[in-house]
Amino acid sequence: MEFQPKMFYSSIKPDFHYEGQVFSMEEIGSHPEIDLVIVATSGKVGLSPTLASIKAGKMIALANKEVLVMAGEIISKEANSHKSQILPLDSEHSAIWQCLQGEETKPKRIFLTASGGPFYDYSASQMEHVTLEQALNHPTWRMGRKVTIDSATLMNKGLEAIEAHWLFTIPWENIEILIHPQCIVHSMVEFVDGSMKAQLGIADMRLPIQYALSYPQRWSNAQLPHLDWSKIQTLTFKSVDYDKFPCLKLALDAGKLGGTFPAVLCAADELSVELFLSGKIAFTDIAKIVQRTLEKHQNISQPSLEEILAADAWARDYTTSCLVSES
Amino acid sequence: MEFQPKMFYSSIKPDFHYEGQVFSMEEIGSHPEIDLVIVATSGKVGLSPTLASIKAGKMIALANKEVLVMAGEIISKEANSHKSQILPLDSEHSAIWQCLQGEETKPKRIFLTASGGPFYDYSASQMEHVTLEQALNHPTWRMGRKVTIDSATLMNKGLEAIEAHWLFTIPWENIEILIHPQCIVHSMVEFVDGSMKAQLGIADMRLPIQYALSYPQRWSNAQLPHLDWSKIQTLTFKSVDYDKFPCLKLALDAGKLGGTFPAVLCAADELSVELFLSGKIAFTDIAKIVQRTLEKHQNISQPSLEEILAADAWARDYTTSCLVSES
Repeated sequence: MEFQPKMFYSSIKPDFHYEGQVFSMEEIGSHPEIDLVIVATSGKVGLSPTLASIKAGKMIALANKEVLVMAGEIISKEANSHKSQILPLDSEHSAIWQCLQGEETKPKRIFLTASGGPFYDYSASQMEHVTLEQALNHPTWRMGRKVTIDSATLMNKGLEAIEAHWLFTIPWENIEILIHPQCIVHSMVEFVDGSMKAQLGIADMRLPIQYALSYPQRWSNAQLPHLDWSKIQTLTFKSVDYDKFPCLKLALDAGKLGGTFPAVLCAADELSVELFLSGKIAFTDIAKIVQRTLEKHQNISQPSLEEILAADAWARDYTTSCLVSES
Repeated sequence: MEFQPKMFYSSIKPDFHYEGQVFSMEEIGSHPEIDLVIVATSGKVGLSPTLASIKAGKMIALANKEVLVMAGEIISKEANSHKSQILPLDSEHSAIWQCLQGEETKPKRIFLTASGGPFYDYSASQMEHVTLEQALNHPTWRMGRKVTIDSATLMNKGLEAIEAHWLFTIPWENIEILIHPQCIVHSMVEFVDGSMKAQLGIADMRLPIQYALSYPQRWSNAQLPHLDWSKIQTLTFKSVDYDKFPCLKLALDAGKLGGTFPAVLCAADELSVELFLSGKIAFTDIAKIVQRTLEKHQNISQPSLEEILAADAWARDYTTSCLVSES
C-alpha cells in the first residue's frame, strides 16, 4: 500500500470537531486542504455535503447510492460545470469505470451483473412466502440489512442502473441487467465494434474502494484476494425475469421518468424494507407499497434540491399513513 | 466504417510493381508515405520486411506469428529504439492489448485463453488415433489448415505465449493458459490489486483486425456480430493438461530458453504439420519430431537475424533427414 494521506477527516456525525473548531459536513467536504472526498454516508444525509464538495471542485469517491439516485441530474450538471470528478466505489460501477479506462469511444451498452440474490430461481408463489431469515441470507456478499433486502428484491440493481445512467451518461435503453450468480464478473461494457470488456474479481468491497484511492494507478495489496482459476470452472449468465422482481422494474421506470420519482422510490423502499425487517409486512409487499406511493406522487421535473427533499418527505408521510390506515 | 486510407499497397509477392517501379517488401514497408504496415504474411518471409518497417519507425499491425516467435528479442529491441509501435492482430493478443488500455500499472499476470481444439477432453490413448479429418474440425474458429492443426496440438497457444512475452514484456511465469471452449473470452489480464479485465466477443477475426485499424478509437460496423447474452448461458474455464499437449510444453520451454530454439521449434513444427497433413505421420508424432529436433539443436543465445535463419534452415534439414532415414 502506498496510500499515505496527510490527514483523515472521518465523521458520521453532521458536525466535526477539530482543533477547537466545529465544521459541518459541507465545510469539511469543501475544505481547501481536502483532495478527495469519500462519501460513505447512507441515505439523503449525503446529498447536501456531496453537492458542497462538487461545487468546490473536489474529486469525490461515492459510496452513497441516494446521492445519484435522488439528485442525479443536479449532481451531474454541477459536477460538469465545476469539473468535479465522481469516482464510483460500488463494485458494479467500479467495474464499468475500470473497463472504460483508456477508451476514447463512448460505450454502446453496459451490462450490470446481479447475483440475483437468494431468490433468483424461486417461483412467483415461492416468493410470497419468503421469510426474513431467507431474505437476509445473501449468497455471495456480506452487507448491511437494508442493502441485503434490496439485493433480494433486485431494487438494489435498479438503484445501480439509475446511478450508472448518471455516472456514465448512458441512455436507459443501453443499460442491461444480467443475472450472474457467481459474482465474479462485476459488470461489462460493450463498444460500438461489438467488443466487450468485463472486470472480474473476488466479491470483496476492498478492491473497488482501493481502486478509487489508487486511480489511475493500482496498488499491490497482499490483503486483497485474487481469483483462483484452477477453482473457477463455470460462469453463468441469465436474463432477468422482471415479473418476478417488480422492484427492479419500478426502479428503472422511476429512473426513466426522472424528476422527483427516484427520490420517492428511495423513500418508499427505505420505509417498506424497514417494515419487512421488523416483521410487519411480507416480502412481496415491499414492491406493492413502493408502486402505490409512486402512483400517488405528483412528479416535478428538473426539481431543485429542496423539491427533491420535499418529495422524499411526502413519500415518507404517504407510505406511513397508508400503513396506519390499513392496520 | 470511417477507414479511408489514401492508398493500399498489398502484395503477397516479394516484389511489388507500382507506376513502373519495382519495390521489395522491405522498401514498401519503409516507404515515407506509409503510416501503418499490416504484416499478414505467413512464416519467416515476414521477418526481414517487418524489421525494415520497424527501423523506419512505422506503426506495425502484426498477424505473422513467426516474426515475434523467431526473432522476438531483436524485434522488441529495434521497436523500442526506433519508437515503432507493434499492434497485435491476433484475437488473444488484441484482447490483452484492449484490456491494458488506460492502465498505468504493469499487469501482474496474463491469461491466454485456448479453445482447447477438438481434443481437449480426449484421453492420451484417444489422441494416438486422431485422424486428419478430426484434427481439421476446429470447434469454433475457421482458419487455415496449418493453424488449425497447431490449435489441435495447442502448439498455437505456445507460439502465442511466446508472442505475448515479447509484445507485453511479461515474464514467462506470469503467462497462464486457460482452456475456454466457448471462445468468448479472448484473453484476460490480472493486475497487482487482484482486479482482472477480460475482453469478450464473437470469434470473428474482423474484430481484432478492425481494432488495430481504428485504435485508439473504435468504429461502429454493422458487419461485425455482437454477443447475444440471452443465448450465452455458460462460460467454462479449465486448466491445461500439459502431458496431453506436449507441443504446448515444448513451445513454452523453447520460448523460455530463447536464443535460436524458438526458430527451430517453428521450423520443426511447420514440417511435422505438413507431414501430418499429407498423411505421412500420426498426430502424436508432431510433438515427437519437434522434441527430437529441439534436443539436437545447438542453441545460440542473442542470435542475429542471420543466425536465426540459419537455425531455421538447420532444423528443416535435420527434420527432413530424420524422416528420410526412418522411412
